[in-house]
Order: sequence, then C-alpha cells, then structure tokens
Amino acid sequence: MQGKTMLDLGLRNELIVLDTIRHAPEGTSQSEVVHRSGLSRQAVSLITRRLRERGLIETDGTLSGSRGKPRTILRLVPTALLATGVHLDPAGISVVVVDLLATTITQRTLDPPSDDPAADIDRIAEALVAVQADLRAQGWSTPDGRDVAEAMLGIGVASPGGIDVAQGFVVNPPWLPGWRDVPLVQRLAAATGLPVVLDKDTNAALTAETWSVAQPPGETVLYLYVGAGVGSAVSTGGRVHHGSAALAGEIGHLPTGLEGPVCACGRRACLSQFTDAATMLQAAEEQGILPAADGRRTTARLGDLADAAAGGDELAVALLDRFGTALGEALRTLISVHDPHRVVIGGPSWPTLAPLALPVLEERALAGVTHPITIESSLIGDGVGALGAAALFLQNELSPASR
Amino acid sequence: MQGKTMLDLGLRNELIVLDTIRHAPEGTSQSEVVHRSGLSRQAVSLITRRLRERGLIETDGTLSGSRGKPRTILRLVPTALLATGVHLDPAGISVVVVDLLATTITQRTLDPPSDDPAADIDRIAEALVAVQADLRAQGWSTPDGRDVAEAMLGIGVASPGGIDVAQGFVVNPPWLPGWRDVPLVQRLAAATGLPVVLDKDTNAALTAETWSVAQPPGETVLYLYVGAGVGSAVSTGGRVHHGSAALAGEIGHLPTGLEGPVCACGRRACLSQFTDAATMLQAAEEQGILPAADGRRTTARLGDLADAAAGGDELAVALLDRFGTALGEALRTLISVHDPHRVVIGGPSWPTLAPLALPVLEERALAGVTHPITIESSLIGDGVGALGAAALFLQNELSPASR
Repeated sequence: MQGKTMLDLGLRNELIVLDTIRHAPEGTSQSEVVHRSGLSRQAVSLITRRLRERGLIETDGTLSGSRGKPRTILRLVPTALLATGVHLDPAGISVVVVDLLATTITQRTLDPPSDDPAADIDRIAEALVAVQADLRAQGWSTPDGRDVAEAMLGIGVASPGGIDVAQGFVVNPPWLPGWRDVPLVQRLAAATGLPVVLDKDTNAALTAETWSVAQPPGETVLYLYVGAGVGSAVSTGGRVHHGSAALAGEIGHLPTGLEGPVCACGRRACLSQFTDAATMLQAAEEQGILPAADGRRTTARLGDLADAAAGGDELAVALLDRFGTALGEALRTLISVHDPHRVVIGGPSWPTLAPLALPVLEERALAGVTHPITIESSLIGDGVGALGAAALFLQNELSPASR
Repeated sequence: MQGKTMLDLGLRNELIVLDTIRHAPEGTSQSEVVHRSGLSRQAVSLITRRLRERGLIETDGTLSGSRGKPRTILRLVPTALLATGVHLDPAGISVVVVDLLATTITQRTLDPPSDDPAADIDRIAEALVAVQADLRAQGWSTPDGRDVAEAMLGIGVASPGGIDVAQGFVVNPPWLPGWRDVPLVQRLAAATGLPVVLDKDTNAALTAETWSVAQPPGETVLYLYVGAGVGSAVSTGGRVHHGSAALAGEIGHLPTGLEGPVCACGRRACLSQFTDAATMLQAAEEQGILPAADGRRTTARLGDLADAAAGGDELAVALLDRFGTALGEALRTLISVHDPHRVVIGGPSWPTLAPLALPVLEERALAGVTHPITIESSLIGDGVGALGAAALFLQNELSPASR
C-alpha cells in the first residue's frame, strides 16, 4: 500500500469490493461487503454505485437478514467482462474464452505447437478473431449490450516450464522443442492489440481450481498436474508460488524410491519413468495392450488403456497400478516438503486415469501422514490449461492482492 | 490494511520506519526513509521523533547527500531492545539473548530435553532468570539506561517438527520422544511472564539468515538445515512458508535415487540413511574410524570424523562423500520443486561437514540446472536454532508484514 497514489488506492478498493461480491455466488448485501472488506460504508456505497453503472454488478431483489430486515442483494454479472486463455499444450493448442467466474463461453483446439513459433502465434491470433466473430454471429453481447471485443480484457497464456514470466519469453521448454527464446507476450500483444500474461501450465491449472472460490488466507494448496508429463504447483491463499524462473514444480525426475531402472538423469526410478503419457503408451503397445500409434490424441489412447484395465486386462491394470504407485510416492514426498492443507490432482489425463489410479495413489501418498489432509480430484480435464491461463489473466487484472 | 483501526495503522507505519532504518546498517537520512517507505514527510518526521524519544534510534552526525547537502544520519540502536531464543535441540537446549539485529549478547547450553517437559520448561525459565542476572551483574543496560528485564521483548522457541504453531503446542516430534502434547507457549509464558512464539527449528534457522538483511520481495530462499537430522525451509521476501501443521520440509525420507538399502519407510535410499548424524557416527564406529561413543556431543564427534577424512582416512572420506552426494541429490530435487533464487545451507553440523561435502554436493545439486543459482554456506553453526528462534520472535513483533 505504500508509495501509491490515491487513484491506486481507489482502484484497489474497487477490486476488494468486486472480489467480495464475486466470492458470494448467491449474492450478498452492502452491509456484508462493508463487514468483509473492512472498508467504510461510504466507500462501499460509492464503489458499488460505480460498479453497477459499469454493468459489473447488479442489484437483484432483497435478502432477509438475520434480524429480519430485508436488504438489497448485490450480485456479480459474470458475463460483463471476458478473458481469453491459451494453452501451448504439446498435444494441441487450446483457446478458450471465459467470463469473470472463469466459466467457459466458447473454446477450440488448434494443431500442436510447431517448429515455427511466429506462425503459431499468428494462428493463435487468427483463432481469437474467429472465436470472437463466432460469438458475435451467435448474437453474444454483455447483458448491458456491449460487443465481445469491448468486453474482452486480455489474454493469459499457459506454457510448459522453461519460460521467463517477468520478461514474457518462452525460453527453452523441453516439451516444446520448436520454441526457443520466443518473445511471446510482446508478439501476441502486437498481433491482437490485447494485454497478455504468460505463466507455467501447472500454475495456470492450479489457478483454474482456486479462482472462483475465496481461498482462506493461510491455506496451502498443492496441485498435481497430470498431462503429457507430470508437474506440481503450490499456492498460499490463492497466490501461486513462483520461484526464480517459473521452474518450480518440475518433478519429472523426482526419485520415487521404488524399484526401477536408472534414468538418463542418473537417478534410479524417476517419476517420469512411470508417469509420462508417452512412456505408458509405448509400454502398452509393446505389451500388446494397445495397437501401434494410430494418430489418435494422447488422452484418447490413455482412455483406451484405462478401458482395457477396466475390462480386466491384467497388463493394463499393472501399468496403471505402477502409475498410481509412483505418483503416490511422489505425492508423499511433496506432502513432506510442502505440508499442504489440501491436495488437488488434475490435468488433461487425470479424469481418464483417476478411477483406477486414485486408490493406490492415496494409500501411498498418505502413508505415515498423521494429520488430516484431503486429496481431491479435479474433473476439469483437457481444458484446464487454457481455462487456468484465462483465470491467471483475471487474477493479474482483478485480484486486489496483485495491486 | 483493511479492517484496522487508526492506532494499528500508526503502529504499522512505525514498524515500516523502524524496518527501513534497521536495514541501513550504515545509517540513513530522513529523506531516504520517506523515499523507501512511501510514507509522507510529516509522518516520517513524527515517527522518527517518537522512535528517538523511546531510544530505538539515534541521530549521529551528518551524511553528505548526492547534491552535497548534509543530512542528519538516522541509525538503529540495536541494544535498545532484546529478545530471547530457545532451541529444543535433541543434542541440548540452547538459550540465547540477542539484540534487535539478532546479534548474540549472551548464550548458554542446558542439558537435552528430557522425558519431563514440565521440568524442562522450568529449567528454561530458570536459565532466563540466571542469564538476565548475569547481564545485570556485568553492568549491562540499554544505552538510555534501562535494565535488561525492561528491554526484553519476549521469547521465541524453535522445536523439531511435530508442533502446532497456531496453538503453541509441541505435539509429537519424532526427535523429542519425551515431549507429547505439551502446551509449551502457554506454560513458558506463565513461567516467565513474557510473550512466547513457537516455530520449527528449520524455519527458525532460515529466519536467522534473513532477519538482518532486507530481503527482495519476490526472492525465494531455500534453506537446508543439517543437524541431528536434515530438514528444509523456504521463504519468499523473508517470510517463511508454513504449510498446514509446521511439517513442511520434513525431508528425512526423501528418496535420493541413489543405490541404497530399503528404509523402514518402505522406500529405497532415503536421505536420512546417508545424512542422519547418528547413522553416520554409527557407521564411523563400525568401520573403526571413530572409537565407540564416548559421551562427547554429536558436533564434536562429527568434527572427529571430518578430521579423520581431512587426514586422509579413506573410509572417512567415503562416508562424507556419501553424505555430500545424498544431500546434493536431495537439493537437486528441492531445487526442481521450489526453483529458489538462492540456497543457504547451515545448521549445527554444517560448518564441520561443509569443507569436505560441499564440492560433491554442488556438483550433484546443480546437475542439469540451466539458470544461475547460488549456493551459500552459513557459518552460524551450533547456535542457529536459538538465534533463529529469537529472530522469529523479533519478526513476529516488529515486521510490518506481520501486522
């Protein structure tokens, strides 16, 4: 709060009021906002009037207070503003448009990132134009009649690790071999005329889980991302821990302590040996569980593997058991390192693999844990990277903590 | 800042000014404080006058500004206030009295924690009285003539993991088998009449490293604690990450990925198999490097082991190489999990083991790290737990971020 002008203070207070109303999906009253925000009644009154004039909140009927006195309900207008999320998923670029609650309005999937980042960025920019044109053609506008372009705040991009968040560069992600030292934020902003933020896919996915619900200030959430590879992310009070170069949570070579071969990294029984989608699918082919690669997407082929296991194929069951066991051991290590209040597991492949992997994972992860800790499965699945990227943009733009 | 009274705001601003002056060991000017704190010139002027009247800062000569205009120097009076730190080290309880810069004024070591926590707490309270009497007998007083008891702010206690920070309980630390469900904070406060805070030894040690020097807001520091066991702690901008039950950083059973036996925990080649002081000393005895346990303290016996290695004993060299290799692999894992800007290694045993273990540790830890990361050795050594406990108390009491 130090060193800010009054204008900034005003903006921060607006965001505090908006946050308070956003976190009350059933609506809330002005007194409740005064109580929760710690701001004065006069300030809240002034700010809610402004937010109403700008179409961001609406008043809607009355609410009976505990003392029976009816109060006007204040409620967010989620579709008053939009954000775009882009996920540079090695399996295919996803683009999504969301509202203020990070609810999907529309989405589409493009071909995977290529060896020509400049062309990829043009494809993304074109997709944004096309998506907005589609929405317009469908008659979409904000409740107060503004066009999609006017409602669009900006773009969040999620990339695999190997990026420079502060500079907005994709530097050298092992998962995107064609992308080296790409000034993504600057180029995509130039191509679209919109502000752009960049972060890691795992951080985006965690933000997709935490954006819509108020997070207790001291609560530590550990997120396990299960996609082409596995990764982790940690937040406290809804804010992701970043580290020095957006490389936190690169857990592919975390030793599991299981029996296993020595990895190219020099360590025995690394996590990725058991959990990388490509490794699992290759083993499934070699063991005759699945036919040779057939051009279908990774998630679909993992679905075939899960179906085989559910149908009683013992080799498939064993593969998924190894996956769950290794991920459980990694989670046990991460719990001892971070001591989270709760764990969320998600990512593109998780909904497919969870039914068979979760029981053994929980058994391994919670071995020796003496205090209560919950493990939740996210069901967002394939779209989590793009959705989270949009949520990251909203958080950067609208969270009072970022001011 | 929300929901605070004007009194709190005033206090917070006082702490901001005190922090700014504290972080300028050479002294600073009032203009510089205005610039760095973001507070108004009038507020800073009022607050520095108050701090001077209370003996917390002094004016001392003049400083030539860049434009040649002489300015009055403001400087902290470190010994204006004191804090006590207590470390429930399994090897022996340490008590230390420090000034506002966490510089040691006096210290003493008591017998290790016993099976009678109530008696231990009485011993600690008696030691505090005795330490204060000693200081008084030596003629110690604050520069403005206040007695040691008047200058003493309170007590920080550092304990091995297995504690409840919020409730102030020592719950079930594996390293303190005689301490179960002890309401330490409440009892020690009752026995001494002073406020008491409790935290984990690793968190305390990290705070000992970060308290005296201003920490960049977004800088992530990873601390490796090497004592009877090993542990880790992480801070961002000088604030330690806590997790749900002060169990973050319990890395004893982190798999190293090395060749090694299966541990009682069920995993192969756990860190503690290579790094626990008791395990290393037992191996040293079995291999004839050291005589059977002779009643000397752990640190002294580790010193004998290091001396043997420095003298060319190949078995001793091999033991310390295994220690450095395993800790290096663990650090490599922790770097990939946390992505810190810098790493500090310290703790009671580290200064003894560092000369032989550091080169192999660095080689292992930085394998595959492509961005700059510094690894520093702390030389605080044996006293770091108690010193850090005192620094934790000072941080709780005096850091603006804690208000």
